[in-house]
Formats: sequence, structure tokens, C-alpha cells
Amino acid sequence: MHNYNILLEADKMPDMWYNIMPDMPVPMSPPLHPATHKPVSPDDLAALFPPGLIEQEASIQQFISIPGDIMDAYRLWRPTPLRRAFRLEKALNTPAKIFYKNESVSPSGSHKLNTSVAQAYYNKISGINELTTETGAGQWGTALSIACSMYNMKCTVYMVRVSFNQKPYRRGLMQTYGATVLPSPSDTTDFGKKILAEMPDTTGSLGIAISEAIEVAAKSGGSIKYSLGSVLNHVLLHQTIIGEEAKLQLESVGEYPDIVIGCVGGGSNFAGISFPFVHDKLKKGKDIDVIGVEPTACPTMTRGAYAYDFGDTAGMTPLLLQYTLGHNFVPPGIHAGGLRYHGLAAQVAHLLKHNVIRSVAVLQNPVFEANLLFAKCEGIIPAPESGHAVKVAIDEAIRCREAGQEKTILFNLSGHGHFDMTAYDAYLNGKLEDYELSDDILKQGLTCLPDIKA
Amino acid sequence: MHNYNILLEADKMPDMWYNIMPDMPVPMSPPLHPATHKPVSPDDLAALFPPGLIEQEASIQQFISIPGDIMDAYRLWRPTPLRRAFRLEKALNTPAKIFYKNESVSPSGSHKLNTSVAQAYYNKISGINELTTETGAGQWGTALSIACSMYNMKCTVYMVRVSFNQKPYRRGLMQTYGATVLPSPSDTTDFGKKILAEMPDTTGSLGIAISEAIEVAAKSGGSIKYSLGSVLNHVLLHQTIIGEEAKLQLESVGEYPDIVIGCVGGGSNFAGISFPFVHDKLKKGKDIDVIGVEPTACPTMTRGAYAYDFGDTAGMTPLLLQYTLGHNFVPPGIHAGGLRYHGLAAQVAHLLKHNVIRSVAVLQNPVFEANLLFAKCEGIIPAPESGHAVKVAIDEAIRCREAGQEKTILFNLSGHGHFDMTAYDAYLNGKLEDYELSDDILKQGLTCLPDIKA
Repeated sequence: MHNYNILLEADKMPDMWYNIMPDMPVPMSPPLHPATHKPVSPDDLAALFPPGLIEQEASIQQFISIPGDIMDAYRLWRPTPLRRAFRLEKALNTPAKIFYKNESVSPSGSHKLNTSVAQAYYNKISGINELTTETGAGQWGTALSIACSMYNMKCTVYMVRVSFNQKPYRRGLMQTYGATVLPSPSDTTDFGKKILAEMPDTTGSLGIAISEAIEVAAKSGGSIKYSLGSVLNHVLLHQTIIGEEAKLQLESVGEYPDIVIGCVGGGSNFAGISFPFVHDKLKKGKDIDVIGVEPTACPTMTRGAYAYDFGDTAGMTPLLLQYTLGHNFVPPGIHAGGLRYHGLAAQVAHLLKHNVIRSVAVLQNPVFEANLLFAKCEGIIPAPESGHAVKVAIDEAIRCREAGQEKTILFNLSGHGHFDMTAYDAYLNGKLEDYELSDDILKQGLTCLPDIKA
Repeated sequence: MHNYNILLEADKMPDMWYNIMPDMPVPMSPPLHPATHKPVSPDDLAALFPPGLIEQEASIQQFISIPGDIMDAYRLWRPTPLRRAFRLEKALNTPAKIFYKNESVSPSGSHKLNTSVAQAYYNKISGINELTTETGAGQWGTALSIACSMYNMKCTVYMVRVSFNQKPYRRGLMQTYGATVLPSPSDTTDFGKKILAEMPDTTGSLGIAISEAIEVAAKSGGSIKYSLGSVLNHVLLHQTIIGEEAKLQLESVGEYPDIVIGCVGGGSNFAGISFPFVHDKLKKGKDIDVIGVEPTACPTMTRGAYAYDFGDTAGMTPLLLQYTLGHNFVPPGIHAGGLRYHGLAAQVAHLLKHNVIRSVAVLQNPVFEANLLFAKCEGIIPAPESGHAVKVAIDEAIRCREAGQEKTILFNLSGHGHFDMTAYDAYLNGKLEDYELSDDILKQGLTCLPDIKA
């Protein structure tokens, strides 16, 4: 019997999140206030986030207990299956063992629900009944919509205009869960109005949508909070349930990974699958190759500057020391909308800077070629974002074949592509473009960086 | 701890399908040859199906071993979770316990993959490398596309024209798995050309698409076989893995259902969830209320005739004694495309005729209202078809509240609605129609019935 589907019993689900902060090899530079450039205090964050999340953001506790209510919510779809890709291995004729964590089985279709239910919960218990957020491709907006419906909260999603128009089904999905979905830039915020006045035909960007969502929360007098789907430490640590489950599941079949792979937009799914293993690398001397994969169209890690920058376009967020293409940078319209982000979680950037992890950039067409092979072998259509991890997992498996190495590869299938069929259609019809950005374009993006010594 | 997610270990997955034929309370009338009206012989079926499936079609063996290769394929997504809908129970304030089998986690998004991999397998081992089929909403076409890609077979799908045009994403999904998808009626078959000449603007129907797919197989000289996604006994028995798993999962938490519910188009998902329990009812005297749910727009069970009829429009299939609205009947364009079928599996019809099971018809808008509540509680967007089971499960739970009864309800969530968001959009915007068919319309549909004594 081939054990394709490595499950974990519900009562064996890890009940603590892993926080990488105390394990960092070198101390991290603090987040800075956007106006004063002084280290951000918990009070500075209170307008946007509830106490529970602010505490986690700055926590130096290695493991943080998951409240029972969130455990119950997780059990709606967790533990997720770990799958051994026997058919893919056979198709590649590789001696490598390929495992993937299947986060696509969540009701929202991706890993994003791991943090959205936690964020909704901490807001709810602090008396908040309304959240705002932004979404690009729609995975995050969907996840927050579901979480808010679970906790009977209002949810307003600023959806990047180009996606709002191109993806009516994704929009409908959020509305089905009861969310209000607005195209960004919108005329409901000052920043949105300003952008619309300057560029009436703009397609919008994630940075602009973040600014709008933050503005609504900041001006609400405390009744509305803001929710972010990636980048921040509390988001990364909520996602570590992925890697922790995977570790137990691998252990149950006597395996441990030589290579761990995740795609990287803001960095949360990558952190989720990899940080529990990075822990072993930092603290137990495990030899693991940890790879973050990004698109060449938005090469934050491979070609960005290591610098302090804002998380949004308007410059309202704290400044984080990160890899960045500049907060004004608008990446080409690749289909992996979740990877079209100029910046990076500071924790992921820190590990990259100190060579604990490494990064790879891949083109769009090879990603879809890999996804088609994966779909034919494993049955699942990967989200374009997750496909970046699929592509590099396949590349590594081929390398193993060529070198005759029986390595164990683990990657995160962060979501399915059911709402991205236009992208597959475009690929099948030879209409996908590949983007290699010129040095000039990248240099121009970096002109907006604030002048702060890293 | 609430045990929402009742899993089953991979090595506990049942390895036999249940065949209800030997357990029937009264012998069934045989299928008849479409031309001679004599009982069909295995030879008559050889042009369309491989030996393994023909054997199962006529089998009187109670349990049929699942070949190891199919078990391996099943393990790509099986065992599927059984979920206790705690949040829905709470929202309904019902003392009833609601369980549902979550077949939506399959790579194809529905239960259909349970039979498509089996059908592809039996064709492959008999030397067949190409299959044809029809699809309405697209769940079945998707499932057969995936199965064919797993076994390296060619797959041609005749997709009802109205769906082909309205659902480009569903079409793209099948193409991503390598299938050829044609709008039906098409100009690739004699029957398709005939229909196009008579009705150039027709939207097509499942009956027409079946006729086209059968014609291609019948005229191939044996190299191409036909595959059907419901109705036939071998399809029903492949689906019993659903109910058998559910039985083990319920047992693991000390439960047994008082009510079992499935939606009914051709009858395969209904048979899948219910037949293993119908077995207990027939053979062990268990008192279970088994309910098949259909749309009022296509009321085969509740208002159809019990008569011999064809499965397709052209009259090429064997004649089955069933409930039918007449093989020319074209149901109104409800969104539950998989339930828009004039006929019914003979086994399901037989059980209904002999009062072992019962049937309920529901309107479209109440189904979507129930689905929205379900989505908000459980996170999952049901397929419009599956939503019919959701609706009646909710109705029964409310009845339990009113009667103060703590019944255990089990239903099959046969698939997710990710490719049906236009339907949800229409509902949210008040644009869904409800159809109650007039007696005249139904009477007219029955004028095409062949004159055979039941």
C-alpha cells in the first residue's frame, strides 16, 4: 500500500504556535514609527490591532498557546493532509521523496484561514465587531470573510480594482460569506479619492488597498480594526501550525526533510511551512536547505534592497527592515496576485540576510508548466502562487535524479487555483507573458525609500 | 474539545464496494434492449463498456473487492472527512446532531471521482486508451478528465452547450487535465448534426450529450469506450465507499444515523451515502429514514411516471424501469445542473417504489438560503446540487427542534460550489427563479414513453 495521504488525528493537532523571535541568530532591528522613525511602541499599534495581537507581535515567547476557541475553529479543516507525491515522483523518475502539505482543503481554499480566524478571535474578545482589510487575488479577503462570519463580525474588503473587475467569482465568494467588497482605489477613503483624482484609470495595487483599509480603521475612533494577511510577526506565527503538523506527520512515517520550500509574497505561508524546521536548523544543527520562491516579475528577495521601508503605498504602516522593491513599485500583472508585493516580512528578510534560508526567482510560464504536470499527477490545480513552490520542488527533484540523491523534499501547497482558471486558460492558449525586469525599472522603484540607516 | 473533523486512517479505508442487488426486497425488472425490448445481455453492452464494468453491472455479489490500484488512487484524497456540524446545530438551536460527509475535498471537487478512477482503471486494463462522456454542470467531466490523466488515457467530453458557454472556467479545468471539451450538440456526431439542423439555437441537454458520446464509442470499432457518471449499477456501487466510510467514522464516535439524506440527479451520490445504511435497514431491521432530494424544477421522483424509459434523448441506451419525466423532457435552467436529468437509477427507483426510501422536492431559492447559512457556519460553499441535501438536513433539524427530538442526521456534501459562483451572485442579487412545473408540462414530457408493461 502506498500511503499517499498522511493524516493526523484531530487530538494530535499541535496546540501552540511557534514564534521564531527568541531563536533569531542575531537580534533584529526594530520596526520604526512612520513619522518619528523611533522604534514603534505597543501603543502606536493600538489604533489598528487588538491587545492579543500586539502582544504576539512583540512576543519573545518561543511557543504561544492556541486558545481553545481557535483550536475548535481550526478543527473545521485541520489537521490538513500531508501527501506523498508518489505519482509525481514516478513521472519525474526521481529518487527524491516529495511531500507536500495540502492547505488547499481549507474552506477558504488556502492557508490564509489559519491567521484570519485567530485575528478575528482576538479582535472579537477585545470587543471589536468590525474589521477592514485589503485583498489582491482574493485569497486573503476570502479567508477574513469566512472568519468574520464565524465570529459574527462585519468585514469590509478593499479589493485591488483590476482583480475586482477580473474576478467577479472571487468577489461573489466573499459576498456569500457576508463581506462588503469595494474596488480599490475607492471613493470611501481620503487616500482612495486622492489616487482616483490623480490616476482615474488606475488598476490599483495592494499597497494602495492597504492604505485605504488602514485609513478606515485609524479614523474609526477605535470601533473598527485593521487586519493584515501577511508580513507581521503575529501572522507568521499563526501559520506555523502548518509546519508543526507537517513535522508530526513526517515523523509518523519516519521522515525528515532535507529541503523545505514555500512561495513568498509577504512571507506568511513560507514562514508557516518552514519556521518549525528553521528552528531545528538554528537550535539543533539540522542541515536543511530552506528555499523561498518568488516570481521574477516581483523579485523582492533576489533583486530588492535590504532597507527600511513602508508596508503600504501611503506610508502609514511602521517602517520594517526588509527586502523591498520600494513601496511605490507596481509589479507587472502576473497571475500570482498574492506574490505581487513590494516588500517582505522582516523575520523572513532577517533570515535571508543571515543566510539561514535562500531565495529563488522563477518565470511565470515554467510555473504553469510545472502546475500542469502536478495537476495531472496529483489531481489538484495549484493556485498560481503555490505553483511557484511546485516548480522549485520539481526542479530540486530533477536535480536529485541527476545527482542520484534520495533527498526528502517538503513543500507547501498553500492553496488551490479554482478561482484562477483564466490564468490556466491563458497558459493553455500560449498567452502568458514572462517578465524579467530591467535594472532601470528596479532602480526607479527604490528611489522612494526613506533615508534610514539599516 | 469539539471533534468537528472525524477522520479515518488510510489503512482503515474500506476495500470493498457494496452492491445492493442481492439485498433487494423484491426482484428488479431487467434492463431491456432499446430495439428488441428483450432483456439486455452482457454482449449488448460490450460495445460501450469494458468487461470489468459489465460484470459489476450484472453482479449479484454483495461485496466487490476494490483493486489495489484503485485503492491507491482513492488514497489521493480518501478517506474523506466526516464532519459534525456543531456550528450549524448551534445556529439552528436544534437538539439534533448533524453529520456530513465532505466529498468536496476530492481533487475534482465532488464525489464523481470515486467512480471515474474505477471506470478509467477497468477500461485501461482491458486495453482501452480513450473514453468519451457527457457533462452538464461539469462535475462529471472534470472527474473523468482527472481519472484519464491519471491513467494516461485520452478523454473527450461532450458538454451541454449552455454550460459550455456559461462556464468557461469549468471547461478550462477539464482542458488543464488534458481533456478535449466539445459543446453539445456538436458537428462531430450524426445525432449532433441532426439536432443542430433541426434546432440551430438549442442550448443542448444532458440526454443529447449522452447520445453523442455513445455514438462516438459505438462507431469506434471498439477502440473508444463510453463512460457514464451516474444511473448504472456499477456507478452506484463505486460510490458506496462514501457511506461505508461514514459508517466507520460514525461508529468511531458512537453514533448511528436516524436520517440519511442525499440529493438525487441520476442517483449515484445518494446511493453512495445511503446504500450501506439501506443494507442495515433491509437486512438488520434498522429504523432509518432515507431521503432523496430533488429540485421541483425536475421532479423525477415526486411527480414522474414509474415506467420503462431510455437514459438518453436519441434512445440508444437500454430501457430501464425507473421514475422518469420522459427522455425528451428538458428541465428549466436551474443552477443545479447535475440534477437536471429526466430519469433515475433503476435501483433507486426500485427502493422508492417499494417504500424503502422516500423523496422530497425543494425550490431553488430556499436551497440557496440554506447554503448561505451552511457556508457561514461551516465555511464551505456547497455545490447547488449538494445544497438540496443541505436544505433538507436543515429542515429535518428544525423539525427535531420543534419536536424536541435528539435525532442523528447524516447527509452527503457531494461537492463544493467554487465553479457555481454565478448562481450565488444571482441569489444574492434576487435574480434566482423558482420553478413549479404545471401538470400539463409534465404530462407532455411523458408522451414519448415507449409502450412497455412495467
